[in-house]
Amino acid sequence: MASSCPIVDIHTHMYPPSYIKLLSSRTTVPYIHQPSESKADPRLIILASDDDPSRPRSSRGRPVDSSYSSFDQKRRFMKAHSIACSVISLANPWLDFLDPASALSTAQQINNDLEQACAESNSAPDSDGQKLYAFGCLPLSAQLSDIISEIHRLKSLRHIKGVIMGTTGLGAGLDDPSLEDVYAALSSTSTIVFLHPHYGLPDGAFGGPEILAKSGHVLPLALGFPLETTIAVTRMYLSSVFDRHPNLQFLLAHSGGTLPFLAGRIESCVAHEREFVVNGGQKHGPQRSIWDVLQTNIYLDAVIYGQPGLNAATEAAGSVDRVMFGTDHPFFPPLRTEKDGQWLSVESNKGAIDRCFSQNEDARRKILGGNAIRVLDLDL
Amino acid sequence: MASSCPIVDIHTHMYPPSYIKLLSSRTTVPYIHQPSESKADPRLIILASDDDPSRPRSSRGRPVDSSYSSFDQKRRFMKAHSIACSVISLANPWLDFLDPASALSTAQQINNDLEQACAESNSAPDSDGQKLYAFGCLPLSAQLSDIISEIHRLKSLRHIKGVIMGTTGLGAGLDDPSLEDVYAALSSTSTIVFLHPHYGLPDGAFGGPEILAKSGHVLPLALGFPLETTIAVTRMYLSSVFDRHPNLQFLLAHSGGTLPFLAGRIESCVAHEREFVVNGGQKHGPQRSIWDVLQTNIYLDAVIYGQPGLNAATEAAGSVDRVMFGTDHPFFPPLRTEKDGQWLSVESNKGAIDRCFSQNEDARRKILGGNAIRVLDLDL
Repeated sequence: MASSCPIVDIHTHMYPPSYIKLLSSRTTVPYIHQPSESKADPRLIILASDDDPSRPRSSRGRPVDSSYSSFDQKRRFMKAHSIACSVISLANPWLDFLDPASALSTAQQINNDLEQACAESNSAPDSDGQKLYAFGCLPLSAQLSDIISEIHRLKSLRHIKGVIMGTTGLGAGLDDPSLEDVYAALSSTSTIVFLHPHYGLPDGAFGGPEILAKSGHVLPLALGFPLETTIAVTRMYLSSVFDRHPNLQFLLAHSGGTLPFLAGRIESCVAHEREFVVNGGQKHGPQRSIWDVLQTNIYLDAVIYGQPGLNAATEAAGSVDRVMFGTDHPFFPPLRTEKDGQWLSVESNKGAIDRCFSQNEDARRKILGGNAIRVLDLDL
Repeated sequence: MASSCPIVDIHTHMYPPSYIKLLSSRTTVPYIHQPSESKADPRLIILASDDDPSRPRSSRGRPVDSSYSSFDQKRRFMKAHSIACSVISLANPWLDFLDPASALSTAQQINNDLEQACAESNSAPDSDGQKLYAFGCLPLSAQLSDIISEIHRLKSLRHIKGVIMGTTGLGAGLDDPSLEDVYAALSSTSTIVFLHPHYGLPDGAFGGPEILAKSGHVLPLALGFPLETTIAVTRMYLSSVFDRHPNLQFLLAHSGGTLPFLAGRIESCVAHEREFVVNGGQKHGPQRSIWDVLQTNIYLDAVIYGQPGLNAATEAAGSVDRVMFGTDHPFFPPLRTEKDGQWLSVESNKGAIDRCFSQNEDARRKILGGNAIRVLDLDL
């Protein structure tokens, strides 16, 4: 199957050594803590809610084993799931937390690390034909001119195929007018943005910390993450970012959060909003329909773990050409031993693609790899 | 078409005179304000965010014209859209705000008003065959025994076909253990619960009041409402309410918020949660799959304004038998004059049903009316 239909994973995270070193040097979120028991894996404390002071440090967050930093392990995972190519990206929260003074040099270092690691991996004698590419990261806390210069510099790195970004932008969200020059640079360089959540929703949205504590990470991960993405893109849409930058290309994590399902409701609320529809029918607010934006400016990954979601994603995207397979590796490792070393999380997503498109082999191939090869210009 | 396929609207709100009187007597949210200009419609200030102290009272909230309280206008609206039957319900926030001492008597009064209005309307000489039924309301701030007695009493009111409820329950959410006896009473009386949002998300989820102010009600209505519903039902699911009460029947507003789209992600997060999956694979937390709950305990309205959402709803519901047409009237009135007095919001929802099921007339009829007739036992 792999030869006739190369599988490309566009949602797969890695921490290169320079990023592990950075996190290990910190003691506030995000940070990596090495428990004193020598055999224990280091712990990654990534979300503010992970840093629960009532727990000992050694049980906060999640174990961060070598799957986060080992390119060998990434390749073994790829092999187990017949993935021919991975477009790796730093996991959240990227460089959002950096001191402005060090942001640019850190971003350059990490992006160079990613470029070099992909190049070395692809030319290794034991590469087995597997290919790695990467989404770079931006020094969003640096000066605007530094952010823009890094966007331009990334075009010279052959294995960097876009950038990954969170929902806060420069700190005030993606509808921040201060981002105009960044959007212009992303457009003019045809740089695709992989938009990924990290900050979730305020605890109060879920009923507060006591309710949250009852179900581990389920509420923030299953609901907070997708809503964060949906809110961020909707704010961009409502503030006419896509009207002013019609060539922006965004790839949305987790099949757009909930955007495919709620696009109709967003459209209806805009059409019925007195702030937007004024006397005589003259229209303020976004000028393009949300469907047009979905079908022109937005790509979706297929990380949605089920058929109803995947079908809605492809339908809202307007075509099977705009949806791309992903795994979210190394997050969601199996908690029970699965047959053949297959990960349940990967099989849910791949299974949904297989079942949704059991009668449409062309669509299946596009979503599993063809779209990524075309959109990201991957050399496979 | 109306004769061969009776259309039933199960999501349509009305304020009977006793509720208008109640809101008009109040000066804190929710309340109705009569501006001093004699020709101006009264204003309904329904959401905390509507009560913006920087605006004069006369421009806060939304105009609440007679369409909220006039049964004649409801019937004219039904006729314009070929709706044969409406199952009316109080709009949010129902009786959530009542003083405990007056809650039971107020609920009884309003439920009796609804019963009488439906009975009178259905037997009126000019009823034209149109039928009205209603979802009752519960005195949730009253003593538990009063809530339960009203659940039982409602079974004696012929036109009351279930109850409408918000997401806060007794004040602490729908996973509150104090609701056990209420769920038992709802189950034993086979009372369907129409679950509807009101409280939305904290302002911080949207970036704060300044961001919210830029786009009127779009963010809280388009995104806050559906997420509130999704969070409420997911909390019920995670706390095993549907394990303990396998006969509960919930009808979710706005096609389940985002539940159909996110069900796969919820399932995956539960399967990967260390709090739930413990050593040896023994499982804590919810015992039934979210898909089983969707396909056994949950009905969805079809108020989702587009094909991708409607298809996901019917697919997640497991069958076209569990999705029912609704309008959300009198909310979302057209801001421009539409041809033939048709409401854009209604046409979006009806159009989505027509297009999704253009090749399946049986499914179209079920969603437009057949399911509601069967599930709510309507005499049409």
